[in-house]
Amino acid sequence: MNTISASQADEAMQPKAKFRPLAVNQIDVAGFFGPKLDTIATTTARILFDRCLEARMLEQVDPDLPNPGIVIPFQHNNTVTTQMFWDSDFGKSIETAAYALNRHRDAELEARVDMVIDAYSRLQAEDGYLNSWYLRIEPGKRWTNLRDRHELYNAGHLMEGAIAYFHATGKRKFLDVMCRYADCIDATFGPQDGKKRGYPGHPELELALIKLGRVTGEQRYLDLAKFFVDVRGESPSYFDAEAHARGEKPEDFHFSTLEYCQAHKPVRDQREVVGHAVRAAYLYAGMADVATEFSDSSLDPALDALWTHLTERNLYITGGFGPSKDNEGLTFDYDLPNDSAYAETCAAVALVFWASRMLGRTPDARYADVMEQALYNNVLSGLSDDGSHFFYDNPLESHGHHHRWRWHRCPCCPPNVSRLLSSIGTYFYGLSEDEVAVHLYCENKAHLKVSGVNLALSQTTTYPADGRIVFGIEPEAPARFTLSLRVPNWVETYTLTLNGEAVEAQLQKGYLRLDRTWQAGDTLTLDLAIEPRKLYANTKVAHDQGRVALMRGPFVYCIEGVDHSAPLNSYLVEDLSKIATTSIDPWPNTIALEIEALAEYQETDALYNTRPPSRVSAKLKAIPYYLWDNRAPGEMLVWLRREA
Amino acid sequence: MNTISASQADEAMQPKAKFRPLAVNQIDVAGFFGPKLDTIATTTARILFDRCLEARMLEQVDPDLPNPGIVIPFQHNNTVTTQMFWDSDFGKSIETAAYALNRHRDAELEARVDMVIDAYSRLQAEDGYLNSWYLRIEPGKRWTNLRDRHELYNAGHLMEGAIAYFHATGKRKFLDVMCRYADCIDATFGPQDGKKRGYPGHPELELALIKLGRVTGEQRYLDLAKFFVDVRGESPSYFDAEAHARGEKPEDFHFSTLEYCQAHKPVRDQREVVGHAVRAAYLYAGMADVATEFSDSSLDPALDALWTHLTERNLYITGGFGPSKDNEGLTFDYDLPNDSAYAETCAAVALVFWASRMLGRTPDARYADVMEQALYNNVLSGLSDDGSHFFYDNPLESHGHHHRWRWHRCPCCPPNVSRLLSSIGTYFYGLSEDEVAVHLYCENKAHLKVSGVNLALSQTTTYPADGRIVFGIEPEAPARFTLSLRVPNWVETYTLTLNGEAVEAQLQKGYLRLDRTWQAGDTLTLDLAIEPRKLYANTKVAHDQGRVALMRGPFVYCIEGVDHSAPLNSYLVEDLSKIATTSIDPWPNTIALEIEALAEYQETDALYNTRPPSRVSAKLKAIPYYLWDNRAPGEMLVWLRREA
Repeated sequence: MNTISASQADEAMQPKAKFRPLAVNQIDVAGFFGPKLDTIATTTARILFDRCLEARMLEQVDPDLPNPGIVIPFQHNNTVTTQMFWDSDFGKSIETAAYALNRHRDAELEARVDMVIDAYSRLQAEDGYLNSWYLRIEPGKRWTNLRDRHELYNAGHLMEGAIAYFHATGKRKFLDVMCRYADCIDATFGPQDGKKRGYPGHPELELALIKLGRVTGEQRYLDLAKFFVDVRGESPSYFDAEAHARGEKPEDFHFSTLEYCQAHKPVRDQREVVGHAVRAAYLYAGMADVATEFSDSSLDPALDALWTHLTERNLYITGGFGPSKDNEGLTFDYDLPNDSAYAETCAAVALVFWASRMLGRTPDARYADVMEQALYNNVLSGLSDDGSHFFYDNPLESHGHHHRWRWHRCPCCPPNVSRLLSSIGTYFYGLSEDEVAVHLYCENKAHLKVSGVNLALSQTTTYPADGRIVFGIEPEAPARFTLSLRVPNWVETYTLTLNGEAVEAQLQKGYLRLDRTWQAGDTLTLDLAIEPRKLYANTKVAHDQGRVALMRGPFVYCIEGVDHSAPLNSYLVEDLSKIATTSIDPWPNTIALEIEALAEYQETDALYNTRPPSRVSAKLKAIPYYLWDNRAPGEMLVWLRREA
Repeated sequence: MNTISASQADEAMQPKAKFRPLAVNQIDVAGFFGPKLDTIATTTARILFDRCLEARMLEQVDPDLPNPGIVIPFQHNNTVTTQMFWDSDFGKSIETAAYALNRHRDAELEARVDMVIDAYSRLQAEDGYLNSWYLRIEPGKRWTNLRDRHELYNAGHLMEGAIAYFHATGKRKFLDVMCRYADCIDATFGPQDGKKRGYPGHPELELALIKLGRVTGEQRYLDLAKFFVDVRGESPSYFDAEAHARGEKPEDFHFSTLEYCQAHKPVRDQREVVGHAVRAAYLYAGMADVATEFSDSSLDPALDALWTHLTERNLYITGGFGPSKDNEGLTFDYDLPNDSAYAETCAAVALVFWASRMLGRTPDARYADVMEQALYNNVLSGLSDDGSHFFYDNPLESHGHHHRWRWHRCPCCPPNVSRLLSSIGTYFYGLSEDEVAVHLYCENKAHLKVSGVNLALSQTTTYPADGRIVFGIEPEAPARFTLSLRVPNWVETYTLTLNGEAVEAQLQKGYLRLDRTWQAGDTLTLDLAIEPRKLYANTKVAHDQGRVALMRGPFVYCIEGVDHSAPLNSYLVEDLSKIATTSIDPWPNTIALEIEALAEYQETDALYNTRPPSRVSAKLKAIPYYLWDNRAPGEMLVWLRREA
């Protein structure tokens, strides 16, 4: 057959560009995210270090401090303790501190980071190996249990911390340390004879190696990331062989199946999102990064099917996923319980990572819409308004007993949500040779180079309170490039004007793409209509039937006990109920919703009655989901009962 | 104050009678429960022994077999393994076998029981101590951890097995063995100086000692039961002292609080049902037994408050309780989730025990109604229709992934539901000196002695398929006694005739009490109106709002996926929907319900839609809850969506 197949033709049509994010210090974020970044820079970044130290992490890292021994008991049949993951907590805390330092110089915070970095530097083994658990608590056991013990995962987080700290401060020390560790890992794992064909039990290192390759220009790191993606799920299983070598039976694995760590089959054969949610999204993000860097379209069928499987069957409306506490992950299709939702903060953070990397080869609102949905709901909820407390799991309904933690025995979420939010500017844009894609809207000023010309690009907007975004385009010299603006899938109408005149732009995969020669002083105004809307779940989602969710822009709304006098499930919303916008204390810039409703009540205290409840009219006040549990403790509900 | 208070006057009005159950071999059960008892007698009783042996329990018990060592891994920070509870599994299996032998002589089964009894006899220590874990796996550690390790609980179950086996076969060997063990326990624990003031971490022994006292006439056993009730929750805590003696910190207790084992305060100060559900109901049952045997009204305020707290705030409509898997027990008031309901079979069994013992001093439908509700729903569901598989937890909603187990690592439920159902006749009647109270209706013939006269009492009925119960009363000689018949609280109308003539009877605490001189040949006919009915949960029960449950007689109904084409939560029932009775394969004697409904559907596969679903009319078929998961696997739903 010499004809070109449809898919080959599609392939030929695909842009070969590589869209990469800007560095954090290229974007000055204001608007909606501005105050959040200030809170993290001034409060949360310090809190993370305080609580890591309180948890005795530095004692494990610093070879000159007395060895703390086992501080956190083993679990899962004595295979693992969360103490083994401490390096990752430090890595993410350093990364957060780095982004904080970009925004707000803080000599004391910087000194504390330097102290931890110095400890790691002194801890590092001759050959570059650097894992505080294996160097101090269980020496001699390195590389014996990649499946359970987060050894390579820890490496990834330390690398990401080092890269961020280098960008923020220009100090190379930690970056050099982590390059030596990357070299050690590269010397240990790989396709070459004599190297181990192992890979991370908890993916994450893949993402770090891509970043490290980009910042150092070292192709070996990109190649190693690709190796970890390519080798995953090989049969016979590396993890099983490791278990045998430890004298264990693979079938005694606490989580029963290698689906838990997405190592049940080669990644290119995977079609369904399974297992531990954070592991899953980190892996898929790594796959997408490899697909971008190597222009490897052999990963596309898997990535496309996995994305569809997640978003069409397994995604909470808040952008969270992984309903089960038991495996911190997936169960079966359409299983989206609300009050027992696990929906780990880290999983939503990981979904933002995955979605952002799916934008690596072309702007596509399919991905950016979900990135925005996860960000404004399940991610933002992870951090309290004052930046001091953290949700690990993010239910969509609470009966008054779910609150943010001060800390957690497995404190993965606090620094993860913090590093994402404090670097949020890097998710706003995707930059290729000759295109700037605008994925997210928020007031900011960015400095970048496109088509060889330095460009100052600004957004002036109160989005998502209002849908008007004014772009200031200031190239150093007139420059031809494409500016692509996402039109969220929930927008019904929009207008676009250039320098005050209506302008036509092609809408391609949800992006308005303007390919022209831009001049200094060009002003582009996008007006997105943002109205409250009602959402109804697919009838296969058992838990949401007879219910309706309210959204406005990217925000999912919820009602809280503190604003209502009756149990939240005694209220009903009619399909024709009016929704008005209103304000809410103590958040002057937040738009709350006021909804006509009915309230049910009974005359008796009996648990079960033969008479149905009576109804009176009532009003509900709804706030953005991410803000819940910041006032008085009480009930919370996203999916409201409806009366058609 | 010399006046008599209202409560003292009430107290004076209370009958001082002691209502005790009949022995299993005094009642010949037919009707609704007949086939179930045949299945247990011919199938389940053998299965229990097969699977106990398969689990290697006999190897631990028989001192002449090689020691199996630790077969089931420790859990809860290495404090406990369910292997420590094996004696209880054997005890309940022997008890089931005994009841089975009453109904169906089976020499092979009897020989197997004798083999196990023989092993226990050889295992018993010189001083009477008898616990296979401590005699064979951890010798020298007896009485060091009453809180966690079920040592006294095991003793209770073995005693109950011994009593039942003695009743069934007349063989005294096991009863004698267990009396020696009871004597050993009595010599170890008690209020006297030099004895330990410990008590069961998992109550159950209290019930066994009451039974043992009744069968042997030995007051010491009753006194010991009372001691265990009275001493519980003393401060400082015996369990904490034990933990210190083991070198552990009480605050490291896996379940955090002694509420878990209802030892947080003296029982007379307890007012709320807390902690592990089975422990709770066993304790309260023991308290009620002690209240009866010792006419101890000082326990009444606690028992009354606990009963109210359970039934008005924490009881599933199926008669189950304890929603949480984490503590196998209670959480907070009105927390009654349906698809994640734990509602352990053993907890419902324990509730039947508790309710039946609350009837120890007077017939009161408040207790018998709940006993019936638990029995016909959460208890019966525990056993598959063919008697071979078992539910441990009993959700009220399933999305297709919940099925009965062949066996369980903690196989407490299979022999527990089996021993209850195979002895169900003993729950039908309460017998005092001069009163026979009929608590449950089912075709049967009973032989008993009341007011000094032998009486053959029969019920002819298809209840609960139909509400007519005909009592045949055959005293050896005319005898004056009270016959009390429960009128279930769900009955709207009833008629009562004596020898074909309408008869007036006082309705007292839900019982029609007829005090007269009865003649041979007297026939009493009670006609209870049994109609399908709709139940609505209190608005404080978040999970049931917007929903309705269907009942008919004592049965809660559910719909199953196998009978319906759409997802079960896409159906709605209107308050005015008609309900018709119908039949269902493969259960010719079962009444199914057919309900007019609406089915919702959508035009798209999207997970969330801005358009509400459309509706078409549909019909639902509902079956008694206990029968679910006996046909094709699939969804199940008790609380149906309603459209007012």
